Amino acid sequence: MNNNPPPLAARMTDIQPFHVMALLARARELEAAGRSIVHMEIGEPDFPTAAPIIAAGETALAQGQTHYTPAAGLMPLRIAIAGHYQSRYGVSVDPTRIIVTPGASGALQLVLTALIDPGRQVLMTDPGYPCNRNFVRVVEGETILVPTDAESGYQLTPELARTHWTDATAAMLVASPANPSGTLLTTAQLRELHALALQRGGALIVDEIYHGLTYGCEADTALAISDDIFVINSFSKYFGMTGWRLGWLVAPQTHVEALDRLAQNLFLAAPTLAQHAALAAFTPEAQVIFEQRRKLFAERRDYLLPALRNLGFDIAVEPQGAFYLYAGCERFTQDSFSWCRTLLEEAGVAITPGIDFGNYRANTHVRFAYTTSLEQLQEGVARLGAYLRR
Amino acid sequence: MNNNPPPLAARMTDIQPFHVMALLARARELEAAGRSIVHMEIGEPDFPTAAPIIAAGETALAQGQTHYTPAAGLMPLRIAIAGHYQSRYGVSVDPTRIIVTPGASGALQLVLTALIDPGRQVLMTDPGYPCNRNFVRVVEGETILVPTDAESGYQLTPELARTHWTDATAAMLVASPANPSGTLLTTAQLRELHALALQRGGALIVDEIYHGLTYGCEADTALAISDDIFVINSFSKYFGMTGWRLGWLVAPQTHVEALDRLAQNLFLAAPTLAQHAALAAFTPEAQVIFEQRRKLFAERRDYLLPALRNLGFDIAVEPQGAFYLYAGCERFTQDSFSWCRTLLEEAGVAITPGIDFGNYRANTHVRFAYTTSLEQLQEGVARLGAYLRR
Repeated sequence: MNNNPPPLAARMTDIQPFHVMALLARARELEAAGRSIVHMEIGEPDFPTAAPIIAAGETALAQGQTHYTPAAGLMPLRIAIAGHYQSRYGVSVDPTRIIVTPGASGALQLVLTALIDPGRQVLMTDPGYPCNRNFVRVVEGETILVPTDAESGYQLTPELARTHWTDATAAMLVASPANPSGTLLTTAQLRELHALALQRGGALIVDEIYHGLTYGCEADTALAISDDIFVINSFSKYFGMTGWRLGWLVAPQTHVEALDRLAQNLFLAAPTLAQHAALAAFTPEAQVIFEQRRKLFAERRDYLLPALRNLGFDIAVEPQGAFYLYAGCERFTQDSFSWCRTLLEEAGVAITPGIDFGNYRANTHVRFAYTTSLEQLQEGVARLGAYLRR
Repeated sequence: MNNNPPPLAARMTDIQPFHVMALLARARELEAAGRSIVHMEIGEPDFPTAAPIIAAGETALAQGQTHYTPAAGLMPLRIAIAGHYQSRYGVSVDPTRIIVTPGASGALQLVLTALIDPGRQVLMTDPGYPCNRNFVRVVEGETILVPTDAESGYQLTPELARTHWTDATAAMLVASPANPSGTLLTTAQLRELHALALQRGGALIVDEIYHGLTYGCEADTALAISDDIFVINSFSKYFGMTGWRLGWLVAPQTHVEALDRLAQNLFLAAPTLAQHAALAAFTPEAQVIFEQRRKLFAERRDYLLPALRNLGFDIAVEPQGAFYLYAGCERFTQDSFSWCRTLLEEAGVAITPGIDFGNYRANTHVRFAYTTSLEQLQEGVARLGAYLRR
């Protein structure tokens, strides 16, 4: 019928799919055929949304809360988020600086679209969360992927940032805890990054979506350092609300009007029901549930980290947060993508290949997510052990 | 604190806020001070989401349906949407061509980001829905606003499209029924536009979000013409699910993989709960409710159209759909934005200034939305009449 399909924009050749999706689809096929698969590839907590949030959602539904909210979100929710900064971090944030977004994805898109002109550069780590660079690509900016490894804690250290900053650099985007490495930036490092941004007239953007999911330590929010840092957060991870699609952005007061204007145009608003439900995320009963789950994640990490090292995976930095272990598999393969397929087919274990997080040493790294039960993790490790000993 | 705020990207100077938001905020102030305001500015049905959809949402919540769905949406929902094309239009659409999105906003963003390279042009009508051109601006494309008026039915006629098509044109985006005019393109016009797109190697994108809300006629879907037209739709208007943030895109099979890849990166997925709830939108009991509401909209239009003409507003084309009347107010003002403010303050009536929809004759046009009860519309007309006779 169509001999002349409209061509795709050039950017589409640079925007990669998540390679793990093909593995996940194959895993589902195998499961449909009766095979048992241990899932350690999924970047989503296995817990359902906590009961108090579900109950708040039910109440909002019964009340018919189905119309649009303001573009920046319900004011009571923005106030509740500000309250969270006060109670958890002792940091005072004006609620008008908080913009509620459709997931952290919406927040990333807002801030990068508002700040990045064509040809301007954004510094990020390689490895890193793969969507980030695509938000930059969409607006015709350029992502500079800074190779990082165990030596720098898989983080954009102030030294690396200074080295890679050029006249074309407009922003740095860091994550603490980070995906896939689970590592944190120290407050001292964040301070130095902020000083660099100030000095060069660029922006510091800090992804804090794994805050709360730290083990044996607490992460400071970058907002404690300055009001002119852009901070992204999400209800998906610690608060367990992935499918609700709700996150937020805290911006300098100078930028709120522009970001609100952009949100009006790009999204209209975040989902209304999710916003009403999320109000219950800051109740004491919900916080108790989140802290119980955090303990379970800590137990899983404390099991999986030494178990993987025993199998021969190289995990040089102890990750302190998120729910991932980024592991060198050099001893086993020089092509981790093919190897992940093999492990799925032959060991019944699904993990994510390094290529989903960047280019630097991606072929000798894989990511394990401990978003499944301790029993499943033990089964996964047993299967990997048996396979590797063959 | 911040002597050196990071500069906004140049695109932000082109992305306008909705001017009606300032009017709405002022209206809320007046109401808070005890004034009565008739709202004819709001582009959102006044009805709550229909009970069968609410019930389906409650069931999904009780079942803990709170995790991510696939990026393109739940397959049962994609199949239900395909069934809707079959039953309502007699058109067969492969469910794999349907991508469920966070509102029609998400669908517009997907298709324009996937197709428009920097500097490439998209034809749209002036007046038109204001967000559309900003999705193009964000990816550094150029919107060519084609001035339209009563003569062309406020539509991009094939003749206008041929006149404005240049070597830089990559796509046309039309809406039928349109916002703000409520007018439709005929099937013959859509066929001609499609032929033009085919001939020039560009894309035809048709916004059908007001489908179902036509009065005295049914609109054909552009999908009946060809499989290579991009069609956008929404659960917000006819289906009454605004705050749920759910829409969809039907794409040529050739483009589905790229659009799915982009959706993964930009949104991850549409809200899960909304997708489960929307399954109930295709039940007979929900359809009865939608058709009842459609009758109420028709009654409101049939009242408001002659009433406004009697007051002296110029509405040359009878709008057949949506819930808007785009009215010339040349007799009263040459500055419709200021005039809207005056009407709000002095007559207690809120309407939308033409400037929110483009530049062409915007200063002598306003938009009335009949998203409020017949009684309120009557009160609004009475207030306007009293004010204009002073």
